[in-house]
Amino acid sequence: MQVELITIGDELLLGFTIDTNAAHISRTLAGAGVEIVRRTTVGDEPGKIASAVREALDRTGAVITTGGLGPTSDDLTKPAIAKIFGRRMKLDEGIASALEQRWRSRFPNSNYPATNRTQAEIPEGARILTNRHGTAPGIWLEDEKGRWVAMIPGVPREMRGMLAEEVLPAIKSRSEGTESVVLSGTLRTTGIAESAIAELLGPNFLGEPGTELGSLPLAFLPGVAGVDLRVTAKGLPRAQAEKLIKKAILKLRSRVSAYAYGEDDADLAAVVLEKLRSLGLKLAVAESCTGGMLGERITSVPGSSDVFLGGIIAYHNDVKVKALGVRAEDIERYGAVSEQVALQMASGVRERMAADVGVSVTGIAGPGGGTPDKPVGLVWISVHGSDAKARRFQVGGDRAEIRQRAAQAALEMVRRALSNG
Amino acid sequence: MQVELITIGDELLLGFTIDTNAAHISRTLAGAGVEIVRRTTVGDEPGKIASAVREALDRTGAVITTGGLGPTSDDLTKPAIAKIFGRRMKLDEGIASALEQRWRSRFPNSNYPATNRTQAEIPEGARILTNRHGTAPGIWLEDEKGRWVAMIPGVPREMRGMLAEEVLPAIKSRSEGTESVVLSGTLRTTGIAESAIAELLGPNFLGEPGTELGSLPLAFLPGVAGVDLRVTAKGLPRAQAEKLIKKAILKLRSRVSAYAYGEDDADLAAVVLEKLRSLGLKLAVAESCTGGMLGERITSVPGSSDVFLGGIIAYHNDVKVKALGVRAEDIERYGAVSEQVALQMASGVRERMAADVGVSVTGIAGPGGGTPDKPVGLVWISVHGSDAKARRFQVGGDRAEIRQRAAQAALEMVRRALSNG
Repeated sequence: MQVELITIGDELLLGFTIDTNAAHISRTLAGAGVEIVRRTTVGDEPGKIASAVREALDRTGAVITTGGLGPTSDDLTKPAIAKIFGRRMKLDEGIASALEQRWRSRFPNSNYPATNRTQAEIPEGARILTNRHGTAPGIWLEDEKGRWVAMIPGVPREMRGMLAEEVLPAIKSRSEGTESVVLSGTLRTTGIAESAIAELLGPNFLGEPGTELGSLPLAFLPGVAGVDLRVTAKGLPRAQAEKLIKKAILKLRSRVSAYAYGEDDADLAAVVLEKLRSLGLKLAVAESCTGGMLGERITSVPGSSDVFLGGIIAYHNDVKVKALGVRAEDIERYGAVSEQVALQMASGVRERMAADVGVSVTGIAGPGGGTPDKPVGLVWISVHGSDAKARRFQVGGDRAEIRQRAAQAALEMVRRALSNG
Repeated sequence: MQVELITIGDELLLGFTIDTNAAHISRTLAGAGVEIVRRTTVGDEPGKIASAVREALDRTGAVITTGGLGPTSDDLTKPAIAKIFGRRMKLDEGIASALEQRWRSRFPNSNYPATNRTQAEIPEGARILTNRHGTAPGIWLEDEKGRWVAMIPGVPREMRGMLAEEVLPAIKSRSEGTESVVLSGTLRTTGIAESAIAELLGPNFLGEPGTELGSLPLAFLPGVAGVDLRVTAKGLPRAQAEKLIKKAILKLRSRVSAYAYGEDDADLAAVVLEKLRSLGLKLAVAESCTGGMLGERITSVPGSSDVFLGGIIAYHNDVKVKALGVRAEDIERYGAVSEQVALQMASGVRERMAADVGVSVTGIAGPGGGTPDKPVGLVWISVHGSDAKARRFQVGGDRAEIRQRAAQAALEMVRRALSNG
């Protein structure tokens, strides 16, 4: 089934809000075999909303809109779309009293403006989509030919709830019998550049064009976490798509196994924690240039507390000396960003926190502080577990990217240390 | 001047990539008085790309496309759009040799496929937009009526560079004489709920509808950092728009000054660091539930090292006792998430790192670990500077949001402590 998505809002068009809703809706629907074939964003103007919806209906007959429903947005979406369907607006008493209640709780000392009641009007013959996470209800409008528009709120939490609870079941019930799906599989790698992976795989790695596997598009997706390899199957029955994707991921994994840490949404921090847990080991971190980011990544995983003890953010050199036991003369001699200091930071935090594994990061995140000898992006990472290792990295990007890549590289060094021994 | 934006890519439509490019382009162009009036996203299919571009040209005569230009994307965009303009594709020798060079460096042992040369074809009469940050060049195509399409890459760094260096100057040169701009101003607040701000301001705070200030739309934008108040002026000459926005922000500030920490892109961590710097004070952090996020926020600001010493991530209670000197019996008696423990964490890190100001966070981030007495979202924060304070917060959201709100609340407590004394 093909659907078009229309996201409504001046904030989106002006670029103040990044359209994360759109990605969420696409992924959720793809999982149910529904393909978003076009996405349109328009501002809060009834004429523009109406023409975008009319065009989309002409192309696919199935449209989801987000935004423009709430009490502060002048409620532009509903009347604009009702007009396309030739429906009049009529007052819904239930919605009206909910809106009035909300107003009175916000402005207890003001008179309720009668004009507000127009916000409680819905198109004749529309089905109300319940909003369990906010006040503005959604609307499902459909004509006699089966062409439909689902209007849902733009507030992410309300949108997600209504999509799952109201829209998805409605779409599923009408797409029964439709068999083809859009399915993707991702192999996540880190510690290897996109060009190096491309060379490792060579051209047409999955198969010659025209063959079953070879016709699946393979995307290289480089990011701060590493390079994701994504294979997508389109327009196939679900069972066949699943089989093909699985086969392709297996084939990719066989070639890049040293760098692959997981599939789909896998988070390297969660992978490392799981490994530590299975080995009964406790972890502590010592961070300089990442300033807490490594700890933050680890503790973003629910349940990390049974494996992760804590850490030292040793941003100033005095803290490296006093809180981690790094020798001041080594900082003086080799610099704070050096193998020696990284090693002492890792062993220091391991010892002082009575951890089994200590990991440290020290580097130059920039934009200032680089020298020809030690340029911005230079990072030393050390892992002290059953033995102590240190490795030098030169990573690219701006300050934020350098720190993210450093944190990811530190997690990867822990993963490999645990895999090897 | 009105422009439409078309972002191209299966990854975007499938929801695997969030369209951050679109927001960047909108904001960059708005600053130059150019308004994006519609945004369309289509997949990597020549037919769909062509119809989206044709429709956009019919509406505005001015279109920017991103994506579908690189060597791995089958180069679909250029021929599809050339066809609309009735132009043939022809080989550009300069681009051809650059592409061949790139291939040979990636696959030194493979034969260069002749079909690759088609990627070096550009539409007749097109202007090449130089790509200083990657290999795929951009294209500016224009017809005799002055209708134009600028095709730029989808890779964010390449897109940003080409937009600033090539596209913006071209647009500016043709919009000279056009006077009206789209301009926004934002007042950032924290520590107050959206409904409380709405009540504080009351209806029509900026002025009755129809008056100069009252006709500026005022948006309430709640997020984990707090509630942003954004005022937008559209279709006015730049000087007048600037004056109105300034007036509106001043008026808003006068009413919500206690909660306002900055304007536009202001980051609370940077505001706090600046305040510490001007007072000659050094900061240290002690984090439990935020696990390093507070340190990460602070060190994300370049130059933070002259004010920020470091911190202790005291995730496990043993670390709270050993590394911060929290009394074990107080943890036992009051719990790790308590006023007593927060106070001891802040004074402990202040003393041990020889800082002037210590700030601590301890809370229940969930999803597990809540009790009726101490529910998920309960956070105690303490600031120890010239004196010691602690405050209890109950914040909402999922694990990530609770942690982000806790880090922001901690920074705000430091800001207020510094403002008052």
